[in-house]
Amino acid sequence: MRSPEELRSLVEGYLGDLALTPELHGQAESVRYALVGGKRVRAVICLATAEAAGVEPEVGLPAAASLELVHAFSLVHDDLPALDDDAERRGRASVWAAYGEAIAVLAGDALLTEAFRLALSYPSPEVGRELAQATLGMIGGQYLDITGSTPDEVTLHKLKTGCLFAASVGMALWVAGVPEREQAPWRAFGDELGLLFQIVDDVLDGDGYVLTHGEEGARRLADEAAGRARERLAGVPADTSTLVDIVDGLATRTS
Amino acid sequence: MRSPEELRSLVEGYLGDLALTPELHGQAESVRYALVGGKRVRAVICLATAEAAGVEPEVGLPAAASLELVHAFSLVHDDLPALDDDAERRGRASVWAAYGEAIAVLAGDALLTEAFRLALSYPSPEVGRELAQATLGMIGGQYLDITGSTPDEVTLHKLKTGCLFAASVGMALWVAGVPEREQAPWRAFGDELGLLFQIVDDVLDGDGYVLTHGEEGARRLADEAAGRARERLAGVPADTSTLVDIVDGLATRTS
Repeated sequence: MRSPEELRSLVEGYLGDLALTPELHGQAESVRYALVGGKRVRAVICLATAEAAGVEPEVGLPAAASLELVHAFSLVHDDLPALDDDAERRGRASVWAAYGEAIAVLAGDALLTEAFRLALSYPSPEVGRELAQATLGMIGGQYLDITGSTPDEVTLHKLKTGCLFAASVGMALWVAGVPEREQAPWRAFGDELGLLFQIVDDVLDGDGYVLTHGEEGARRLADEAAGRARERLAGVPADTSTLVDIVDGLATRTS
Repeated sequence: MRSPEELRSLVEGYLGDLALTPELHGQAESVRYALVGGKRVRAVICLATAEAAGVEPEVGLPAAASLELVHAFSLVHDDLPALDDDAERRGRASVWAAYGEAIAVLAGDALLTEAFRLALSYPSPEVGRELAQATLGMIGGQYLDITGSTPDEVTLHKLKTGCLFAASVGMALWVAGVPEREQAPWRAFGDELGLLFQIVDDVLDGDGYVLTHGEEGARRLADEAAGRARERLAGVPADTSTLVDIVDGLATRTS
């Protein structure tokens, strides 16, 4: 089993060498800019799941990259002045601040479409179907967030973060050819990841769950989510050691 | 063979009843708003091609609808203040003017993703692959347009309009199961449609080709494109009578 760090390098190399559609012309520059940086958590989960499910992680690279492209798309559009109005992202100018709003709108559109192109490079359409469902959930979550019409924070985070984390596991299962009837224990694991990631994020940023549960309360909720994720992994009939490492890493990360 | 008008009603009915992903929550309202109106040219071409290629037009409905959703996505984002700044579309307020910019950005994102969900409802990923390629070309065309970096008007219109028209034919071929080695004559036809549509559009609006070739010159270019489209159809080994009607309709339309 490859380590999370090895899988991360694999993703970085793949994204760095990614051939974008030539018809994008100059638009490709802002798309590449948007893909620099980031922890590649979703991609690493995807590759680790693929390897645990029995295929070489390399086979999962287009799916893993498509998750990073969808994540980048959502950041580029969320950063726009009309939405979160963030001029900075990952320690430098956000795409709209660097290239203007028009190019940023198109960069997000291109990232989303390139993501589907990658997910559709597999013989089965299931990989792309799962990406579409997760992306629609994420967009719905963003709608609830910016309109303040969220029924509750659990629903919001399930949509905004959870969908894409769950898809990181689910897409890998299709890539590895795990039959649908055998996917349930894996998916139960995937469902815990988004919440774990989100709560730790809030603890590090001092917002979200920290505002509603206090820092100690949020930290406890994160530990509980990590515990459930490990339990779910114990129910998966495979060598899931790298996925356990990923859960430990998500629970204890400091940035 | 069903008439273009019958095919158009089929599309209207399908789009009107279209079940959007429930996770979109309230975002669905602006998505529906963006789907009202329009001539459904791309969808009708798709259904007519599918029928000519040997399947019931109903089989082509998800593909046809996905083309309309991608077209609507492009209009919603192009209308944004940062791009074309159009407050009106199809005789009423454009999506950003009606719902605000943030919701309009998300509405375009949702339309694009729902389009892939529809295109991926087929067993073969080819339908979605062709949609992705066409959409990337369209985004590249929009980039060239707003940055004024177009090498020439033919390249620009091929990307901005031609890609999606060509895909209207190409996606129908995959839907109908036409083997790749038999697709060339159909695709030669599809390649003429975008240009025909674009030049007539410019004649009706008095811009684009009219500015560079004069009204008479543009009209002549449109007639030539229609002539080439009919010639290409004559090379297709199938009953293409409805497609001939569509070409005639595109060449003589007055709105």
